[in-house]
Amino acid sequence: MQAKVILVNGMQFVGEASSGHAIVMDGDTEFGGADSGIRPSELLLVGLGGCSGMDVISILRKKRQDVRDFEIMIDGNKSDSHPKKFTDITLKYIVRGKNISEEAVKRAVELSMEKYCSVKATIEGVAKINFSYEIEQQD
Amino acid sequence: MQAKVILVNGMQFVGEASSGHAIVMDGDTEFGGADSGIRPSELLLVGLGGCSGMDVISILRKKRQDVRDFEIMIDGNKSDSHPKKFTDITLKYIVRGKNISEEAVKRAVELSMEKYCSVKATIEGVAKINFSYEIEQQD
Repeated sequence: MQAKVILVNGMQFVGEASSGHAIVMDGDTEFGGADSGIRPSELLLVGLGGCSGMDVISILRKKRQDVRDFEIMIDGNKSDSHPKKFTDITLKYIVRGKNISEEAVKRAVELSMEKYCSVKATIEGVAKINFSYEIEQQD
Repeated sequence: MQAKVILVNGMQFVGEASSGHAIVMDGDTEFGGADSGIRPSELLLVGLGGCSGMDVISILRKKRQDVRDFEIMIDGNKSDSHPKKFTDITLKYIVRGKNISEEAVKRAVELSMEKYCSVKATIEGVAKINFSYEIEQQD
């Protein structure tokens, strides 16, 4: 898997990955950036959520769960001193749908966190990862 | 630092971070996705490059280096078995400009890798990170 990042201007970089998709990154205005794009370290949280989200929704679909809305809230704490690595990250999975099985959600989340999610497995050497889930049943 | 990811359709998720910027993620068509956005695990490579790129260009500007183009090529290897974590990642910094000091580039890259880059510090517990640099002098 490959990527390249190219400086455009100021602190603005475009990152392009081997899938062919590109994103804009930029720094905060406090630190010389122009806030024209996402922060590089935010990509760890977004990537963790996307990686696990794809696992969980795949498993819930295989289990024939009628999921109508699905989101994950991610909260990361970083150390105060350089290099300000993430020390702990919490994911909260929110599943909305009809007759959602709590057992299915619990199992899907555990399978992602313990077996499938490559982003989680890459960052958990340093950051402690916690997770919880919430189910909202709909008619 | 916070983020949320929301399922849109199929395997397409939109991730939004606390800076207010959003990106689209999607899976490969081989794995039930529609390839409409970047892969979540690619965000680790792009985030690593962006994080270190901002460090290095800041330091080179402080050292009054006349950098005209700057990019980083990133190459990551993942393990074959689940959870397919990154085992090693290589960054190659390419600096183009006039009278670029090799010592300045070497020092800037080392400072980023050893002291400042939060993404590197978060993933190096699991993935071995290697780096090199190349300078192209211009008239």
